[in-house]
Amino acid sequence: MPAALNNLRVVLVAPRNPLNIGAAARAMSNFGCPHLRLVNPYKVAFREARSAVGAGRLLAAAKEYPSVREAVADCSLVVGTTAVRHRELQHPLRRLETGARLIRKRLASARVALLFGPEKTGLSNEDLSHCHWLMRIPTRQEHISMNLGQAVAVCLYELVRGAKVKPQPARAQPAALAAALDRISGSLFDALEISGYVNPKLAASAELKVRRMVRRFHLTEEDAEVFLGMLRQILWKLHSGGDQKI
Amino acid sequence: MPAALNNLRVVLVAPRNPLNIGAAARAMSNFGCPHLRLVNPYKVAFREARSAVGAGRLLAAAKEYPSVREAVADCSLVVGTTAVRHRELQHPLRRLETGARLIRKRLASARVALLFGPEKTGLSNEDLSHCHWLMRIPTRQEHISMNLGQAVAVCLYELVRGAKVKPQPARAQPAALAAALDRISGSLFDALEISGYVNPKLAASAELKVRRMVRRFHLTEEDAEVFLGMLRQILWKLHSGGDQKI
Repeated sequence: MPAALNNLRVVLVAPRNPLNIGAAARAMSNFGCPHLRLVNPYKVAFREARSAVGAGRLLAAAKEYPSVREAVADCSLVVGTTAVRHRELQHPLRRLETGARLIRKRLASARVALLFGPEKTGLSNEDLSHCHWLMRIPTRQEHISMNLGQAVAVCLYELVRGAKVKPQPARAQPAALAAALDRISGSLFDALEISGYVNPKLAASAELKVRRMVRRFHLTEEDAEVFLGMLRQILWKLHSGGDQKI
Repeated sequence: MPAALNNLRVVLVAPRNPLNIGAAARAMSNFGCPHLRLVNPYKVAFREARSAVGAGRLLAAAKEYPSVREAVADCSLVVGTTAVRHRELQHPLRRLETGARLIRKRLASARVALLFGPEKTGLSNEDLSHCHWLMRIPTRQEHISMNLGQAVAVCLYELVRGAKVKPQPARAQPAALAAALDRISGSLFDALEISGYVNPKLAASAELKVRRMVRRFHLTEEDAEVFLGMLRQILWKLHSGGDQKI
């Protein structure tokens, strides 16, 4: 996965808050996307973000550009992110999961720029004019606009998410064998009988109930062994409890 | 989509940074997840987050709890998020997309708690012992740990993302609530202590083991009630056994 997003350029247009720049960089590092570009960042913000503890190499290597045009010049696909407020859109708009699929395809062979607008206003029409199409995160209509750092994190997550999920080394927990379940139900039933839980007249049906319940526990081999050990110790105590007191 | 995450409880355990609390709340509002719970938040942080501009109703309605146990008591599935550093995990661990699918299913009929640990340390073993299983966001090995607000945003996005809102085939048997599982682990542990199963020097870790095991049993509400009744009867006998013989 390390190089999956090597061809992506995250472009923050005129960010103003150093915490947001830092958060974007952190998410990029989390998801293995090394290349950050800033267009006209608020100087103080960029300086502060760079000097923050743990900012690291990614921010140090971030490049600054005077315009969106220059920041995306070497990319073959330029995608803008938007919260689509009241603005009339003149671009195709895709939901994140659809857009991410297209971006991933392109990343296999070329550079892609993903643009995020300033915190308050989002991307301007001028900025959008450099984009091939737009993408939006499926937030609620009532609260559509995301925090910048969080929006970057969600977009990168979606890009990484679909990237060839390697089959997880199955933590193969073998299920307990029937014989083990049987010993468990037996011991539990014995303990219940000694404790007076079982009505002697209904003992047979109670025993079946205990057996069925134990089988609903989804016990693994290991848990079954532990649980049986517990029940045996309790049983031993139930049997010997009186003796010890004599 | 508005009510899709109505049954979810986002639980922040001991958060210290007001900006993170605010960011978590904002992402929750973006993705339509209204219910926030805080366990032992750093008081100043919670106060500052609440008074921040635009914090709004979600934070005002956030509930505070003294312990994880109490914060998840009314939930039937408790999922912890983790960056899985070097800690040895004793829970099943699922990737976010797999885990989210299971959470969505459960949300159709019951409450689910999603736990996020403190910024520096993540969830403790004690916190984790209340979880049915754990979930991790697929970040890079070299920089695995995400910012709290971003982690919340990514998890909620994944939950909303796949919400095709299919009518759910009713799970015939509702799962036991965390409070019931807690009573069961407590009673079982008591019985084990009285029976001499527990090495007093290792009591604390033994208690966590019992809690985790009980959460692997997949208990239904009904089975939980029956099983608790059994354990209480056994406990009563363990306590009174000697007396009867006198």
